[in-house]
Amino acid sequence: MNEQSIGVGLMGLGIVGGQVARVLVDKAGDLAQQVGCPLVLRKVQVLAPDLTRPQAKEMDSRLFTTDDDEFFADPEVDIVVEAIGGENPAFQYLSRALSSGKHVVTSNKEVIAKHMGELLALAQQYDVGLHYEAAVGGGIPLIMPFQRDLVANEIKGIYAIINGTTNYILTRMAKEGIGFSSALSRAQELGYAEANPENDIEGIDATYKIAILASLAFRTPVRPDDVYSEGISQLNSRDFQYARELGFVIKLLAIAKEGNGSIEVRVHPVFIPEDSFLAKVDGVYNAVQVDGDLVDRVLFFGKGAGALPTSSAVIADTVSAAQDIALGVGNRTKWKLETSKTIKPMSEIETKYYLRMNVTDRPGVLSQIAKVLGDRNIGILSVIQKETESNIQTAELVIMTHPAREEAMQLALGELRQLNVVMEINNFIRVEV
Amino acid sequence: MNEQSIGVGLMGLGIVGGQVARVLVDKAGDLAQQVGCPLVLRKVQVLAPDLTRPQAKEMDSRLFTTDDDEFFADPEVDIVVEAIGGENPAFQYLSRALSSGKHVVTSNKEVIAKHMGELLALAQQYDVGLHYEAAVGGGIPLIMPFQRDLVANEIKGIYAIINGTTNYILTRMAKEGIGFSSALSRAQELGYAEANPENDIEGIDATYKIAILASLAFRTPVRPDDVYSEGISQLNSRDFQYARELGFVIKLLAIAKEGNGSIEVRVHPVFIPEDSFLAKVDGVYNAVQVDGDLVDRVLFFGKGAGALPTSSAVIADTVSAAQDIALGVGNRTKWKLETSKTIKPMSEIETKYYLRMNVTDRPGVLSQIAKVLGDRNIGILSVIQKETESNIQTAELVIMTHPAREEAMQLALGELRQLNVVMEINNFIRVEV
Repeated sequence: MNEQSIGVGLMGLGIVGGQVARVLVDKAGDLAQQVGCPLVLRKVQVLAPDLTRPQAKEMDSRLFTTDDDEFFADPEVDIVVEAIGGENPAFQYLSRALSSGKHVVTSNKEVIAKHMGELLALAQQYDVGLHYEAAVGGGIPLIMPFQRDLVANEIKGIYAIINGTTNYILTRMAKEGIGFSSALSRAQELGYAEANPENDIEGIDATYKIAILASLAFRTPVRPDDVYSEGISQLNSRDFQYARELGFVIKLLAIAKEGNGSIEVRVHPVFIPEDSFLAKVDGVYNAVQVDGDLVDRVLFFGKGAGALPTSSAVIADTVSAAQDIALGVGNRTKWKLETSKTIKPMSEIETKYYLRMNVTDRPGVLSQIAKVLGDRNIGILSVIQKETESNIQTAELVIMTHPAREEAMQLALGELRQLNVVMEINNFIRVEV
Repeated sequence: MNEQSIGVGLMGLGIVGGQVARVLVDKAGDLAQQVGCPLVLRKVQVLAPDLTRPQAKEMDSRLFTTDDDEFFADPEVDIVVEAIGGENPAFQYLSRALSSGKHVVTSNKEVIAKHMGELLALAQQYDVGLHYEAAVGGGIPLIMPFQRDLVANEIKGIYAIINGTTNYILTRMAKEGIGFSSALSRAQELGYAEANPENDIEGIDATYKIAILASLAFRTPVRPDDVYSEGISQLNSRDFQYARELGFVIKLLAIAKEGNGSIEVRVHPVFIPEDSFLAKVDGVYNAVQVDGDLVDRVLFFGKGAGALPTSSAVIADTVSAAQDIALGVGNRTKWKLETSKTIKPMSEIETKYYLRMNVTDRPGVLSQIAKVLGDRNIGILSVIQKETESNIQTAELVIMTHPAREEAMQLALGELRQLNVVMEINNFIRVEV
């Protein structure tokens, strides 16, 4: 540490990195007041120093380096801010920074979701801070609330709308009655979805984020592979129509719960009651509801992505790291991720279900379907028959069930598909209340 | 500091204090893991040691003292947790604790709102921490997000439903069409309002809380006396009916805004659009919306009162103070409250207005009213005439205005009252969009 200032080394000068560099310069006076001394951008590591990019044009070209060794060897870099994204080489860079005794700030959800345990252990070993507020929910405070404000709570559950792209698409489908692909195209036109949208629409992005939140909340390593995940591409405008008729809204929720020493973590479309708070979170907004034994329920809401909100979180972490450096504090985290809790297999979870299927329109059909469900101990809460294609004598049935085990439901679905009277299971969606 | 543990001294054993004591015992293992060593309740200061109270019954009677000198002299008390409430003697106690080099945690909004500057200065002088997360919004993280997560933002505005009692009353009035006093009685029956409800319904409680948030957000001393405040007792079921017809909801909002180097801070009933997020916050819940230049908009929601949520915040602060003690860190706050910004007088604020008045029901009345408003530069957005008492030939007029200055509106109201055709100005409510 330079006695007169604290130095920041930035890795990556994309949309987030460029914005972070801009804030460090534009708000230098205010940030220095927070830290107690200037916070100075000392070095920018880039793959190639493309000085024609708008972010780069504003900056002193002597800050740039393409040489990793030079970057990490710089004694004036006290804090490494990683804004590259992706698993590698980010994981190598973060490991190297921590092992070099540098405090680390990252906005990279993938690397944290996949390597939280190893990075946390390195930070403790080398007594430096590891900060990743920007990895989940952009500018919405989430990581620090879990690490600090909610620390006295036993967390019972997390229910999160944590991917803006899918929430935008679902909102359009719900409000306009349009299909999935039209809504996706619209999101792409507006820049809310990428040209290759798989990461968002298949729930992968949400999987990283809920893995991080669950790991923190339950202090147990929850890896992306532990998270059951389904995307939104199978949803049909009919599902939205029936949801509305039944008093529900369809959202892609990331859910993490703990009970009886075991954890369930999953990302999939759900029916939630239309009067619940999460049902009212529309468009690109994110919201994370946390249920704890003391706080009862708290909810955090805001823009979960974008350069400006993400830079808010990155700079907050950087200031916090700088305050620690100024105070001579290394790593503040005393707890370790424990491995005593088990992750519940998806087959063991229990929810209510919505089923939509095409059946032969004649007497006795419902009793056959009810028997299959009943034999698997799945109670029917309501059935609505929708006439769909009278010329070919089929009807659409919408069934809402009582709580049932996923395994029983999957077996029942297999058996229903074998019934002659069932043409097709069009969709089944879990119901959270 | 005892080498083997960190000691807590608790002042006050009411509902919050009793719950804090309980959590310190019940969650001792988990809290020790967070801190790195045990966090032990060493002393409880009470006015009289009523050992028959349920909180006291569970506890070792040797912890109790009624002697302030004994309490503050105890070298094993590293952190003083104040849960007495009120301005005095809490202010003396907190000053004494800080001056004795003890870290302080308080849930007392009144003392923080009235003495933040002095207490912050003492904490800096004696290099100890001053924590008051529980003073605003119970278990909802607010103080730390302002101090830490939002630190890179220029805060533009805070819009807060921050008093559960009044929000409960307003929700009942809106949903059931009942009057203020019926709704208040119901709130009292359920324990949501006190026997003497003045502090809540007149907006005093909200005034303390917004003064604290505004001071933090704008880093300027905002005292309760700087906050313009109106309560909810003047609201009538007709106002709720007209609000609904016009697409609005009535909430008691605490508002703080900064612009052009001046700050406006006020607590009063407002019309807000029915599709806004705050409009959907019902019952005893609180919600605080924060607009910042980087985050755009974030919102924090939860239960703003109650022993359990409040204890969540008190314990989080206590753990944080204990972590600092274990790390040898005193006061982390480098910034000081500045006095360069001015508080805008209420007469200078600008909003839209809703006016409800009884007028003579005959031609030409509206032109007289419109002239008074127009002469004060107040534009009319809409007028609805409601027949109310045809037998005495009066009508009720509901006027929505364009944005106007408060001073102009107050003068216009005085002039309207002088008109022969105006029987009564029944209500006027500001509109926030």
